[in-house]
This record gives sequence, C-alpha cells and structure tokens, in this order.
Amino acid sequence: MTQWTLASRAAKMNSSAIREILKLTDRPGIISMAGGLPSPQTFPISAFQAACNTVLERDGAAALQYSTTEGLPALRQAVADFLPWDVDPEQVLIVSGSQQALDLIGKIFLDKDSRLLVERPTYLGALQAFAPMEPIAVGVASDDQGMLVDDFAAQAGSGADKARFAYVLPNFQNPTGRTMSEERRQALVDKARELDIPLVEDNPYGDLRFEGEAPLPLAARNPEGVLYMGSFSKVLAPGLRLGFVVAPKSVYGKLVQAKQAADLHTPSFNQRVVAEVMKDGFLARHIPTIRTLYKNQRDAMLAALDQEMVGLGVSWTRPVGGMFLWVQLPEGMDAQKLLPLAVERGMAFVPGAPFFPGNPQHNCLRLSYVTVPPAQIAQGIAALAAAIKAYAQ
Amino acid sequence: MTQWTLASRAAKMNSSAIREILKLTDRPGIISMAGGLPSPQTFPISAFQAACNTVLERDGAAALQYSTTEGLPALRQAVADFLPWDVDPEQVLIVSGSQQALDLIGKIFLDKDSRLLVERPTYLGALQAFAPMEPIAVGVASDDQGMLVDDFAAQAGSGADKARFAYVLPNFQNPTGRTMSEERRQALVDKARELDIPLVEDNPYGDLRFEGEAPLPLAARNPEGVLYMGSFSKVLAPGLRLGFVVAPKSVYGKLVQAKQAADLHTPSFNQRVVAEVMKDGFLARHIPTIRTLYKNQRDAMLAALDQEMVGLGVSWTRPVGGMFLWVQLPEGMDAQKLLPLAVERGMAFVPGAPFFPGNPQHNCLRLSYVTVPPAQIAQGIAALAAAIKAYAQ
Repeated sequence: MTQWTLASRAAKMNSSAIREILKLTDRPGIISMAGGLPSPQTFPISAFQAACNTVLERDGAAALQYSTTEGLPALRQAVADFLPWDVDPEQVLIVSGSQQALDLIGKIFLDKDSRLLVERPTYLGALQAFAPMEPIAVGVASDDQGMLVDDFAAQAGSGADKARFAYVLPNFQNPTGRTMSEERRQALVDKARELDIPLVEDNPYGDLRFEGEAPLPLAARNPEGVLYMGSFSKVLAPGLRLGFVVAPKSVYGKLVQAKQAADLHTPSFNQRVVAEVMKDGFLARHIPTIRTLYKNQRDAMLAALDQEMVGLGVSWTRPVGGMFLWVQLPEGMDAQKLLPLAVERGMAFVPGAPFFPGNPQHNCLRLSYVTVPPAQIAQGIAALAAAIKAYAQ
Repeated sequence: MTQWTLASRAAKMNSSAIREILKLTDRPGIISMAGGLPSPQTFPISAFQAACNTVLERDGAAALQYSTTEGLPALRQAVADFLPWDVDPEQVLIVSGSQQALDLIGKIFLDKDSRLLVERPTYLGALQAFAPMEPIAVGVASDDQGMLVDDFAAQAGSGADKARFAYVLPNFQNPTGRTMSEERRQALVDKARELDIPLVEDNPYGDLRFEGEAPLPLAARNPEGVLYMGSFSKVLAPGLRLGFVVAPKSVYGKLVQAKQAADLHTPSFNQRVVAEVMKDGFLARHIPTIRTLYKNQRDAMLAALDQEMVGLGVSWTRPVGGMFLWVQLPEGMDAQKLLPLAVERGMAFVPGAPFFPGNPQHNCLRLSYVTVPPAQIAQGIAALAAAIKAYAQ
C-alpha cells in the first residue's frame, strides 16, 4: 500500500457541496431548484451548428491548431466591443470558463494564509477555486445591496496582513440574487482605491436583467483597480467553457503566464465558433429571449412564494435579473435538515450554509428559477411550503 | 499608482522561453524547426465537421450544457479501451489538454519547497506547470534511455524531503527524442515501488512510433504506482484541448476536486465530438498516416544532418518516433548565441538550456521535424550547418 505525501492544500480541497446535493436530488420526479444550470432551451443550437461548419470550411486546420495564450484576437475585440466602457482588447484574456479566471487570480494574488475578502454569503465555486492557494477567506458583512463599505474597510487588514483582493458579484449575486446599487458601487470602488485593494468583479449574469437600468460595472469606474470577469455560459451555452477577464496592465502579464502554465490556451476551435456566432449582433437579438423566459419564471416563483408562504415566517429576495433567489427561514430552522423533508415531497433546493466563508447561517436556502418551467415552479414551491410546515410541527 | 502585493509564486512564473523565441523567429522566410506544432495536414478536418454536425443534431442542448468534472463516460470508456493495459474507465479523468494534468498533479502533490524529480533535460512546459507550486525541481542524470535508476535513488531524498513524485516522458521524449528501453522501464518502476515514490508518466507522442515494438508503459507495470497522462493533441488535433489522466484510486478523487476548482469540467461539446470521431476505429486508420508523414520527415532530417554536419563535431539523437531530435554542439559552443546566426541564414531552432531544471548545458538544441516539409528540412539543416561554421570561425 502506497503512503504518498500530498500537498497540504489537498486536505483543504473538497467536492462542491452543491454537486454532492445534486447527486442526491437529481432523480426522476424531483422538481429541482437546486442546480445552477441555464435552461437548455436558451442554447442557440442551430447558430452553433452553422458556425462550426463555417469555421471548419473557412479556417480549416488553423481552427484546430495550437494558438496564443491570450486568446483569439477577433474574440478579444468582440468582448471589448460588447462591454459598456472603453476596454482595450489587449487587456482581455480569454479563459476556459470564468471558473478558470478564479483559479488564475487566486494563483497570482494568494499565498498561504493571505487575507481575502468576500461577501457574506458568496459564490461557493469561488471559495472552492481559491481554497488550493490556502488563503483565509474573511466574510464582509453584507446587506441587500452587497458588501457594507464600512465593514470592508474594517476587515481590510494592514501591512503583511492586508487583504490581497476583495471578490464581489455585483449583479444578481449567486446565491442571493441581490444587486449592488449605484451608490454602493461607487462607495466600494472609492474605498478600495483609497486602501489600494484590488477588486475582483464577477459578472456572469449581468446581461440577464429583467427590469430597470444597469448601474455601471465597478471596473468601468476604476479600470486600473478592478479585475473584471465575464462568461459566455449564461448568454450562449456553458458546454463550450468560454469566459474572459479584463485585467489592469499591472497584472495582465502575470495572468497570461499563469494561464500558459495551467492549460496553454483555451480551445482555438471554441473561440472561433463563438466569435462567429457573435458576428452581426447576434447577442443583441438572442439575449432578450433569455431575459423574457427567465423573467416569466422568476415571476412564477415570486407569485408562488407570495401564495404558499403566507404565515410561515419566511422571507425572500426579489431579484431583478439572473437565476437565483434566496430564502430566509424562521430563526432556528436548519435548511440542511429541511432538505430531506422537501425531497420527500418532490422538490430540492440548496441549503445556504456552504455559501458562507465561515460562521454559516443555517436558516437560509437558494432557489433557481431558470431550470424548471412555470407550472412545475408552482408545484415545487407548494412542496417546499409543505416541508416547512412539517418541519415546524 | 497601485502597489499590490502578489503571491510569492508570481515571481517564479515566467513566459515560456520557447514562446518568446517563436515570437522572434516566426516570420516569413524563416524555416522554423523551433515550434512543437503538429503538422496541420494531419488534422482530420472533415471527420471533425461530420462529428460536429452529428453531435449537435443527435445530442442537441446536452452537448452544450454543463457536465461532470470526471468527463464524458463514452470518452472515458474509449480512452480505457484504447490503452494497452487493463484500465478501469472510473480511473480516467478527462482534462483540458495534458498541460492541465500537469497543473492538477502539481497542485495535489507539491508544497512550497517540495522535492520533485525530473529527467535532464525535461519538457519545459512541465517545469512551467509545476513552478506556481514553488517546488524544487531536481534533475536526475539521464542517458540515451532516460533517467538513470541509480541517480533516481540517490536523488530521491527521505523523510520530509522525500521526492513527492518523479516526472518522466518515456517515449520520444521532448526535447531529446529518446525512448526508455524495456529494461530501464522495469528497473525504474521497481525502484519507484521500493521507495514508494509516485511516477508521473507523460506520453503525448507514444502512438507516433515509426519502427520497432513499443515497450509497455510504466503504468501498465504498476498501475497503483503511476499517474499516466495522454493527449489527443498529436493524434487528432491540439486546438480542441483534450487530454486525459489515468490515476490510481488513491489520488483520483483529489485530482477531480482540483479540476472542479480549476475549470469545473472540460468542454462537453469537445468531448462529444472527439468521442464521435473515435468511433469505429478511426484512430487505428488515421494514426498510420501521421506516422508515415513524420517518419519521412525524420528520415529527411537525419539524411540532411548526415550530409551537412560532416567534420563539425556535432552529434544528434535518432528518434524512433515523435516530433523532435536533439543536437549536441561542440563543447564551448552556446546554442543561445548560435540562434541569431541561424536566423540570419534563414532557420530557427530552440536552444537547449531552458529544458534543464538547473545547471543547464548550453551546447545543445532541439529540432522539430514535423512542421516543415522535406525539401525545406534539407535547406534548413544546411543553414544550421552554415551558422555553426560561422560561429566556429
């Protein structure tokens, strides 16, 4: 029997709590609001097929050869053109899904025991991506508009213990669905600039806004102070694994080196296919169809919650975009213990505790409204209410 | 001006010396034997196009959705079936190019200052992939059959300083083109088992054998003691970024967790396309055409070297497969200084020094025979000989 010594980081790596829950709940007959899968009916299959054929017929072997680490110039340009501030394509790095951006950012910024600031709660996959670098993730108190700027300053640390960066998800946050206001954004950017702490702005859902005007991204307010992450997973399809980072010049080169070491480059073929799909304003026509679908499903979920949760002491967020909403259960109720009662009644959710970097709240859970159609949403929320009633008895 | 603190590993990351050289030498009129690009005429473009259409028409949205970290079951099965020993598909992990396997293996095994054993010289991209984990890469003395087993044992270290693993490339090694003999393989596997040191066996070129019988992989001799890495980049095309690891059960789960944190999963679409291309024994028909092409080009390079290098005190390897051969210049000649003289005369190579983990030899260089057709090979080798003559004067 081998007795190999693994890296100390290996003990800190775990399988995603969500993926473990999905294994338990992904079975026939369960209405699952647990997953974060985009609705497959939003994937533009025929546009992809046309683009695959065009790319292979037009570009031939070039589409299948090794390519540069930074990414396909046409795709970097398309990303720069699509973003709502003045972006130099030379600062765009194409990555293998925005999860990879988290890995690369963690690698260049985090030593063992480095301080790292995150929202409370925050995206579980980011905690997982940073964990191999063995940082100390510090939760910043957050309200319905995201990080509280006073607590951001209070937790920032100083000297050798100064936070290496703060990770924030300003639009329709995963898991809470909340959005940072105009005022909060500006205040956070100003304070981060004053303290000289990099902000890592993750924006996978920003294009999926159902109503109101989008406040400018943090990066647009201080491009030299923010690393901005975007993704094609929610507006085109996740199975091509394509995302991007817009990085200040001061760290762009290090990100490229980290990516070269990690996987040489993102698939040349996938980059060409997406650049081809994006031509001629495809996203401007396609994204509104996703918004309409998801808005209807959000409306169905809010209506079902309004109807089913009366008198149960339950509250929830009312997201103006994205995929998720967040439910607060009565004090003392543990979502982890509620889950089997819900599954018995035919629905599944994700308990909220794993989204906290420490000191978790247990009386909260995340619901996705994008995977399940409206009729099933009503049925699933009724099952959740029944589970809550059963738990309370 | 920002004064951000980066991770200490960031200072150890560098852009690949090869990529920097390629930027200087990739210009019109230069016969480049520097790169490691497979010949684009080996890419089965029409098979890919047919597979893209089949996958999108048959699988639809499933081909574009998120999928499991371990990889597509059909592709894991196809990999297990293709390998020349009894492999359980449950031990196959699909990765985003075999470069990613190096990153993941480094992450789970290497702490800062961990000892790591490599051949002298070794694949530069592996040194680059491991560098972010800040190990100490120790070169093991190597001859024309690879690592010397006595020196492997002498450098293995003990206690807390025992080598975490040894990285070896047994077939047509990059950069030298050398192949480990039957006897050396068995002796290395036996010694590694005795010392309980994991072997990481990298085999991207193994299928490109021109002559003779292939000795069994190291992994086939001790499956619980070896992590085996393979790639589709050399037998199909690199631009899809698909590789795989066959890992012992004792570490498979940790590799999966590291991959989940790094990029969630390898593109679903690419996995389905390659599984479709591989159906019905495609590789068994396709690989011989690559072998024939590369063998002709190797023969052209060996013939040109035999003709042009007479009396120059130069020697070279005679690889029985793969893409590269290795040239020893006269003692005291520095390949880095030779490079501009060669470029002036119309050809480029990669100097050998960056392939050494430390204490580099300077009088050696790597030539690729796969990218350039035979007539240009003769012309390029003549230019190299002229540069060597000019240097010696």
